[in-house]
Order: sequence, then structure tokens, then C-alpha cells
Amino acid sequence: MENLKFMDEALVLAAEAAAEGEVPVGCVIVRNGQVVGRGRNRRETKKTALGHGEIEAIADACKNLGGWRLWDCTLYVTLEPCPMCAGAIINARIPRVVYGASDGKSGACGSVCDLFSMAFNHHPQVEKGIREEECAALLQEFFQNLRMELRSRPKWKKPQTQ
Amino acid sequence: MENLKFMDEALVLAAEAAAEGEVPVGCVIVRNGQVVGRGRNRRETKKTALGHGEIEAIADACKNLGGWRLWDCTLYVTLEPCPMCAGAIINARIPRVVYGASDGKSGACGSVCDLFSMAFNHHPQVEKGIREEECAALLQEFFQNLRMELRSRPKWKKPQTQ
Repeated sequence: MENLKFMDEALVLAAEAAAEGEVPVGCVIVRNGQVVGRGRNRRETKKTALGHGEIEAIADACKNLGGWRLWDCTLYVTLEPCPMCAGAIINARIPRVVYGASDGKSGACGSVCDLFSMAFNHHPQVEKGIREEECAALLQEFFQNLRMELRSRPKWKKPQTQ
Repeated sequence: MENLKFMDEALVLAAEAAAEGEVPVGCVIVRNGQVVGRGRNRRETKKTALGHGEIEAIADACKNLGGWRLWDCTLYVTLEPCPMCAGAIINARIPRVVYGASDGKSGACGSVCDLFSMAFNHHPQVEKGIREEECAALLQEFFQNLRMELRSRPKWKKPQTQ
């Protein structure tokens, strides 16, 4: 029940990202049943390569809790973390990660590689597939709309020279 | 010569980190011979798990260049990037990474794993061992001082009960 409740909160943030024209990924960090960090993908609007939901949520949680160790927190995210975000989860010592959809292109928690099973100094536990269909559907709809928009744009033509 | 010049700039930032009581790691990002991003480790002072030199330098470069793609940049860092920072380098599409000392405990560019050779969508080139001795010496000195400081502290004693 906790998994579903907090994944729904992450899905709300993912939908907010989509409404801003961003790839819809949302993330919440939870401690003792309370949300202590929130984030959503904002790579385009913030114009930074670091603008993933997990990074924003970890920064928010560290600020709210006053330290860099998130020892007793769980991170919920709609899409499998990429290497940057999985590495940030290791650095923040987050013991438990729950994600929705898998990411065959960039996932670093089992898809392309599994950073959490390698010889680093922290090994978070993972639960995956929570609200998987809803998380994936948001992404599919976003990319479908993007493709339609790109197709409807007038084609670029090479300027004619005299 | 370029490698040495910019690694020296990263070493200055690493020394600044040490002076602030932080693990001495410094980083610069260079485009067309100009430094466009600077960062140093500030995990303790900023109280965030994201406070590594590379993350700060990438954020700085994205801000200065007005976008998240650092396509034509080189990142110089005194210590081999961890998974979070190597992942951020992939996300920022940085094509070339130069580092000083290797990191057998957390290095994700060849030591513990090599994220840049895995099936992600970007594969930066790496040069390592530039100013290796100086980069490693700064870290060794920092940890030696830290151990001495810890040893000189009065030992904690269990309070005596009546």
C-alpha cells in the first residue's frame, strides 16, 4: 500500500513535468511515512544535464533533513534511474529504491547495468514494476505527441542559390 | 601541455577544498581553450550528497553556456569520477575526460567499473594519470591529517554508573 501511495505522488510530479514539455519522470523521497524530498525532470526548462527528478529530490531531501546521508529514506521514482541518479543514490546512502517502468536504454539498476550490485560501498535494495503501466503510459504518450508535433512541422528546405 | 595547464587549475580548486576541510577534489571544464565551468568538492559544507567537484563544474558550465549539451568540452578532474559524476558526464555528452589519480574504491571510469564502455548512448574518451602524483598527494595528506586529528581527540569513555 505504501509503495502504491508514494508512487502515485511521484506520478503526479511526472505529469507536471509532461505539462511543462519535459520527459515525464517524477520522484519522491520518504522518511517515516513522510515525503521529505520531491523532484521532477526539468532538463530543458532548467537547461542543465543534472535536471533529473531523482537529483532534484535528493537535493531537496538533503536540504530539508540538513545532511547528505539519507540513511533511513526510500526513493520512489517512475522510471528506472540512469547511472548519474543511481550513483547519487549510492552517494546519499539511500537504502531502498522503488521504481515503476524499466529503462532499456539508460537504466542502471538492472537494465543496461546494475550499479547496486557492483563493488561500491553501498548496495540499495530495489523493488521494480510498481504502477509500471501508468508510469510507462505517461512516457509513451509524451513521445507519441512529440513525434506527431515533429511530423506536423513544415519541412526544412535547403535555400536555393542563384 | 593543455592537459597539464588545466589539471593545474583543477589542483588549485582541490587545494581550496582541502582548506575548507573537504576531501580535496577539483574540476574544470574547458571549451576552445577557455575554462567554462569550475567546481570543487563541497559535500560537507553544502550538506548535500551531490556536492562533488564534477557536478558543480557541469552545473556551472551548463549555466555559462546556456544549455545541457557540453558537446565540445573537456572535463579535467583530479580524481577518477564516481558513478554519479561519470553518469553526469554521459548525460552532458562531454566527449573527453582527463583525470589525475585513480580511485580503487569508487572509480567508475575503469577502477570499480567502466561506465563509458557500457551500452549507454554516449562514450567519452578518457586520459588518466595526468599530474597523478600531485593529485594523489593532496588526498593522502588530507587523510593523514584527518587520522592524526581523530587520534589526538580525547577518547570517549562510558559514563560510570553508581
